[in-house]
Amino acid sequence: QINSDRLWDSIHELAKIGPGVRGGSNRQTLTDADAQGRALFKSWCDAAGMTMGVDKLGNMFARREGEDPSLPPVYMGSHLDTQPTGGRYDGVLGVLGGLEVIRTLNDLNVKTRHPIVVVNWTNEEGTRFAPAMLASGVFAGVHDLDFAYARTDAEGKKFGEELERIGWKGEEPVGNRPMKAMFELHIEQGPILEAEGKDIGVVTHGQGLWWLQVTLTGKDAHTGSTPMAMRVNAGLGMARITELVHTIAMDHQPGAVGAIGHVEVYPNSRNVIPGKTVFTVDFRSPDQEKLDAMRARLEAEAPKIAADLGLGIEIEPTGHFDVVTFDPGCVSAVRKAAESLGYSHMDIISGAGHDACWIKKVAPTSMIMCPCVDGLSHNEDEEISQEWAAKGTNVLLRAVLETAEI
Amino acid sequence: QINSDRLWDSIHELAKIGPGVRGGSNRQTLTDADAQGRALFKSWCDAAGMTMGVDKLGNMFARREGEDPSLPPVYMGSHLDTQPTGGRYDGVLGVLGGLEVIRTLNDLNVKTRHPIVVVNWTNEEGTRFAPAMLASGVFAGVHDLDFAYARTDAEGKKFGEELERIGWKGEEPVGNRPMKAMFELHIEQGPILEAEGKDIGVVTHGQGLWWLQVTLTGKDAHTGSTPMAMRVNAGLGMARITELVHTIAMDHQPGAVGAIGHVEVYPNSRNVIPGKTVFTVDFRSPDQEKLDAMRARLEAEAPKIAADLGLGIEIEPTGHFDVVTFDPGCVSAVRKAAESLGYSHMDIISGAGHDACWIKKVAPTSMIMCPCVDGLSHNEDEEISQEWAAKGTNVLLRAVLETAEI
Ligand SMILES: NC(=O)NCCC(=O)O
Ligand SMILES: NC(=O)NCCC(=O)O
Repeated sequence: QINSDRLWDSIHELAKIGPGVRGGSNRQTLTDADAQGRALFKSWCDAAGMTMGVDKLGNMFARREGEDPSLPPVYMGSHLDTQPTGGRYDGVLGVLGGLEVIRTLNDLNVKTRHPIVVVNWTNEEGTRFAPAMLASGVFAGVHDLDFAYARTDAEGKKFGEELERIGWKGEEPVGNRPMKAMFELHIEQGPILEAEGKDIGVVTHGQGLWWLQVTLTGKDAHTGSTPMAMRVNAGLGMARITELVHTIAMDHQPGAVGAIGHVEVYPNSRNVIPGKTVFTVDFRSPDQEKLDAMRARLEAEAPKIAADLGLGIEIEPTGHFDVVTFDPGCVSAVRKAAESLGYSHMDIISGAGHDACWIKKVAPTSMIMCPCVDGLSHNEDEEISQEWAAKGTNVLLRAVLETAEI
Repeated sequence: QINSDRLWDSIHELAKIGPGVRGGSNRQTLTDADAQGRALFKSWCDAAGMTMGVDKLGNMFARREGEDPSLPPVYMGSHLDTQPTGGRYDGVLGVLGGLEVIRTLNDLNVKTRHPIVVVNWTNEEGTRFAPAMLASGVFAGVHDLDFAYARTDAEGKKFGEELERIGWKGEEPVGNRPMKAMFELHIEQGPILEAEGKDIGVVTHGQGLWWLQVTLTGKDAHTGSTPMAMRVNAGLGMARITELVHTIAMDHQPGAVGAIGHVEVYPNSRNVIPGKTVFTVDFRSPDQEKLDAMRARLEAEAPKIAADLGLGIEIEPTGHFDVVTFDPGCVSAVRKAAESLGYSHMDIISGAGHDACWIKKVAPTSMIMCPCVDGLSHNEDEEISQEWAAKGTNVLLRAVLETAEI
C-alpha cells in the first residue's frame, strides 16, 4: 500500500508552482513555472535514488534500476504541464503517483527484475503549442522532431526555442527506448465513475479526435457606416460554424462530442466588423466512423456557410488521433490489481487524449482512471479525494509490480 | 484655395508614426505612438504661429488669434488616434485639414474677426478605452472626468494613468470653452458619396448608437470527456447571440446596422469548453425608434438564449449616443461653401459617431464629408484621393471663413 499522505502532500507542494487564480494551476508547457515544476520533480527523483534522463524534447525519464538492468523497463507516468486555468491533478497524479510507487518500493525495500521508469511527457495539454501530446507523439513516431520544434504559440514563440530557454532540452534522441509496458494513471475528467460509484476505471479504449483549424477571411470595415449588404463578416461566419459544430455533434449522439474552445478575432475592436477569424473545432468519438463522419460533414458544410457570406475559408487539421484500443494484457493487469485490492471498478473509455494513446503505438500500454468531482477538468475547480488518488495509485503499484516482476 | 500637396504631405508624414502592418496606421490612443503624433502636430501648430492649450484629458486646442480676441472662436478638428488596424485618413484629415486652413490663411495673410482653433480630441476611436468619443463627451458634459480616467484597456491599464504616462495630461479644465461653432471634416467611411459620384457630403444628421456589452457565464470543462448534456458552453451562447444581432439588424432594414466586433473567450484553449465570453454588440440607426427597438429586442431575446443553454447573462450599455441633428446654420454654411466652389454635393447622414456629435450639445456644429474608396474604413486599406481631401478642405476653409468673419 502506498503512502497516501505523502502522495497528497507532494501533489499540493507542486501545485504551489504556477498557481492559478482560483486555487487551480497555470503551469503551461515551457514556461518558467514549467521549469520550476520540473526541477522540483527532479529533486524528488534524485532523493528517491533514481537517475534522470532527458531527451531532446524535454521528456524526463527517472529510472529505478532493476535486478536485471538489461531487461526493458516498465514505465509509469503522465505530464506535469497544465491548462492556463487548469486543475491540480490532471497529469500530475500520474507522474507523482508513479513517484509514490517508487518511494513505496524503496520503503519496503522491494526489488524488481525489470527497471522501472517514471516519465513526465512534455506538452501534453497542447494549449500553448498545438497539437496536444506533442512530445509523446514524436516519441511514438507520429510526428518528427522538427515538426515539434517549429510549433509556435500565440505570440509567435517557437517550441524549440522555448524549450532551450527554460533549460530542459536534453541530449538524448527522442524515442527508441526499450519499454516492456507503460501504465498511465489519470483522473477521469468526466462524470461516469463518480456517477456509477466506482473507485477505478479500467481504461479499455480512448476516443479518437480531430482538431480542425478554420480560418475565415472577410473584410474589416466600420460597424456604423458599412451597409448590411456590403459586409463580409468573419465573426458571423464563425458564429454559424459554431452552431454547425454543435449540430453535427448532436446528430451523432450518443458517443460523440464537438465544440470550439479557441478563437481569434481580427482586429477585435468594438467598431470594426471582423475581417478574419481563426478558430479550432474539436470533434471526438470512441467510434472511428462517427469521428470521421463528423469531420467530413464539417468540411462539406462549413464552406457553404462561408460562401453564403462571401467569406474565404481554409480548414486545416491541426491535431488528430484515431480511436485507441489499449493492450489487453495491460488492461487485465489493471483489472486484476483493482480486484485483488477489493476496489469497485468498471471498464471505461477515455474521453480525453493521453500520452498513453500515442505510446500504445510502440509498447503495450493501458490506463487507470480515478473519479473526479462532477466530472470537471480543464477548470481550476477540478477536485478529487485523497482516497481516490490513493486507490488509483495502489492499483498502479500492483499493476507495475506484476509487470516488472518481483 | 488650400495647398493640396502640403496637406497630402503632412498626412503622410504623420502616417509614418505608428505605422500599420499593411500600409495603414496603428496609433491607438494614449500609446507612445499617439504621444509622438501629438508632438509632431504641436510642432506644426507652433510653426504656424498658433498657441497650444491642453486640457486635463489631453484634448489639444491650437489657437490662431482673431482681430477681436474676446469673440468666441470657431473650431475645426477631429482626432489623431486610430484603430489598431486603421487607415491614414480617419480623423487625421479633419485635424490636418484644419491645420491646412490655418496655413492657407497665413499664406494669404487673411485675418478673421473671431479666433480660430484647431482641435485634436483624445480617444475618439474607443478601441483601447470604450466608449468612443470619450474626451469630447466629457467636454460636452455627457460623461464626467473621473469616469474617463477610470476607463481600463484590455490589459487593465487606466485611461488616467496612461494619459499621464505619455505626458499629455494638461492643466486646463475640460469643457466650458467659448465656441461660436465647430466644423469637423471627415472621410465618409461608407460607400454613398463614391457611388453617387459626389465630392462633398453635407452632413445633416448622425446615426445613433448602442454598445451593449454582453457577459455569458458557463462552465469551463474538457472538450473531450464532458458529455454534450453536461456542457454549459458560453461560446455557443455567443454564437447564437451573434446570429440574433444579425437578425435584429436585418429585421430593421433599411436604415439599421448591427454586428459584434470585439470578443473575449475564456480560457480560450482548444480543449476547453468556453466558461465565459464577453463581447460588445454595436447597433446603429438614424431612426431613434429603430435604434431603441433593436436594443430592447436584444435585451428581451438574448436572456432566453442564455437560459436555454444554462448560461448566466449580463447586458451592460457601454456606449451610447442618440440620433444627432446638426445645426442648420452650420449645415447651410457647408452647403453654400460647396456650391460656391462648384463641387458636386449631397446631404448625407453620418454612419459613424464623431466628436462633432457630442460637441453639438454645447455649440452649433456640423460636418463635411469626403468620399473614400469602396466605403472602406477601420481597415488599413482605407483610401481617399488627394483631390477629395483637397476639396473637403476647401469647403472647410470657406465655411470657417464665413463663420469666423473676415
Ligand atoms: N488529458 C487531457 O486533457 N489531455 C489533453 C488533450 C486532450 O484535449 O484530450
Ligand atoms: N468615426 C469613427 O470611426 N468613430 C469611432 C466611433 C464609431 O464607432 O462610430
